[in-house]
Amino acid sequence: MRTYLDCYPCFVRQALEAARMAGASECQQRAVLNRVFDLLQRADSSDVPPVIGSQVHRIVRQEVGSSDPYREVKEAGAREGLALYPWMQSVLAGAEDRLDTAVRLSIAGNIIDFGPAQQYDLAETVQRVLAQPFAIDDGLALREALTRVDHVLFLADNAGETVFDRLLIEELPVPVVYAVKGAPILNDATREDALAAGIDQVAEVVSTGSDAAGTILDGCTKEFLGLYREAELVIAKGQANYETLSEEGARLFFLLQTKCPVIARDLDVPVRSIVLRQGGQLV
Amino acid sequence: MRTYLDCYPCFVRQALEAARMAGASECQQRAVLNRVFDLLQRADSSDVPPVIGSQVHRIVRQEVGSSDPYREVKEAGAREGLALYPWMQSVLAGAEDRLDTAVRLSIAGNIIDFGPAQQYDLAETVQRVLAQPFAIDDGLALREALTRVDHVLFLADNAGETVFDRLLIEELPVPVVYAVKGAPILNDATREDALAAGIDQVAEVVSTGSDAAGTILDGCTKEFLGLYREAELVIAKGQANYETLSEEGARLFFLLQTKCPVIARDLDVPVRSIVLRQGGQLV
Repeated sequence: MRTYLDCYPCFVRQALEAARMAGASECQQRAVLNRVFDLLQRADSSDVPPVIGSQVHRIVRQEVGSSDPYREVKEAGAREGLALYPWMQSVLAGAEDRLDTAVRLSIAGNIIDFGPAQQYDLAETVQRVLAQPFAIDDGLALREALTRVDHVLFLADNAGETVFDRLLIEELPVPVVYAVKGAPILNDATREDALAAGIDQVAEVVSTGSDAAGTILDGCTKEFLGLYREAELVIAKGQANYETLSEEGARLFFLLQTKCPVIARDLDVPVRSIVLRQGGQLV
Repeated sequence: MRTYLDCYPCFVRQALEAARMAGASECQQRAVLNRVFDLLQRADSSDVPPVIGSQVHRIVRQEVGSSDPYREVKEAGAREGLALYPWMQSVLAGAEDRLDTAVRLSIAGNIIDFGPAQQYDLAETVQRVLAQPFAIDDGLALREALTRVDHVLFLADNAGETVFDRLLIEELPVPVVYAVKGAPILNDATREDALAAGIDQVAEVVSTGSDAAGTILDGCTKEFLGLYREAELVIAKGQANYETLSEEGARLFFLLQTKCPVIARDLDVPVRSIVLRQGGQLV
């Protein structure tokens, strides 16, 4: 998905929020904004948004001298997710269709996202997503694919959301390779966030090697690219994975909540939709 | 009120919205944004926000070659206001405290503002504001001042809101001079918008001579400055007049809805508050 001009005010807002989260002085915040204005003047809008967004966040980390501005909110997200874990297990145990419920819980966890906004109501979201109709539902194709493959490559999104992904991984009939970011970007999950959710007990945890949001293949390690190319089924969580991989074909399944109007428009669904979309069907 | 860094993403958003409203091509929109990024890099944040905002909107008008990007929404605002006018007259006729109700209606009309957002629900807002407690209420001081002065200088805000101001003007016990912008900025009222609401039938309509949001005294005509300096009571509508005149003393009364979190914080009230605040009481 290309970058729309609507993304530009959002990049500026995100830069300011990230700088503040990293404890930047007002002078540092201003320096961040000035470098972001420079970047946006030169940005190529045929790039996918996370290419530009990742440069924005690199500027913040450099100017403020913080390697992980979102560390605290990532830990808070994990605590919130873990607090709900026993309750979610009991919901799953009582579910008529466990895979459907596990997919919904994994999508519910996608609300823990500091890109589009700085606030969310996790408990309310879980209740809503358990009952909400899918705006796009390629669940049948996913079930069919799961009968054919010997493993799943699962592209993680945010820290805390990892807890919700764990529930889905436990319901999948095949082994899972769970790919996290190689270094901090926004509140995206890195290896330690996956471990905090105990993902290593249910899947093999690997790194994309990249510090970009979503999965920008050019920035990933050779090792990850090998895993990516050989996977016959890829579950890609969240908006940024959709932004970066929407044209990568039918072996990808995107699980997300639409939190941003630009992505919602691209998917032709309302904001606050839940989506399970197979790739490769774009017109 | 100084400009906060929070205003910067908002300036970028406003530039894009205004460019689109003026029918700009994507290429023109990008050119607008690039000039706005240049402007924001050089901007002096000790200026009040409308100083920078007005430069943003001048860039839009120049790049897109449109003298009044908001013309259509201004006309729509006036139509909406006029459609409610007979009903509002009947509300006033049945009011226990006509001045209080007229002040509330005038503040309700302040929702017709394309600065903070592109959408509003006018009918819902009128109902809400008629019943909502004031977050700041210097109404007693206003009533007292009205007994002492021989006229009121009334600083207008938006087109369409003019209809609501007319109802308040009709309740004031002294003659009113109604000051509108000298040229288009956002959806602010100019002379023709005042005439569309029939303000000339109840007040003398004058121009500030400025094309800036709010009232930036440096940009106003000598003639207006004479009127402003001699006025013993000034009613100033809307956020931008508060931003530009908040330190101008106790003869000013600000009537507004808080629609922007930065201004709400400056006033120490929640967003969506209604405010009747006397100037000159800032700590």
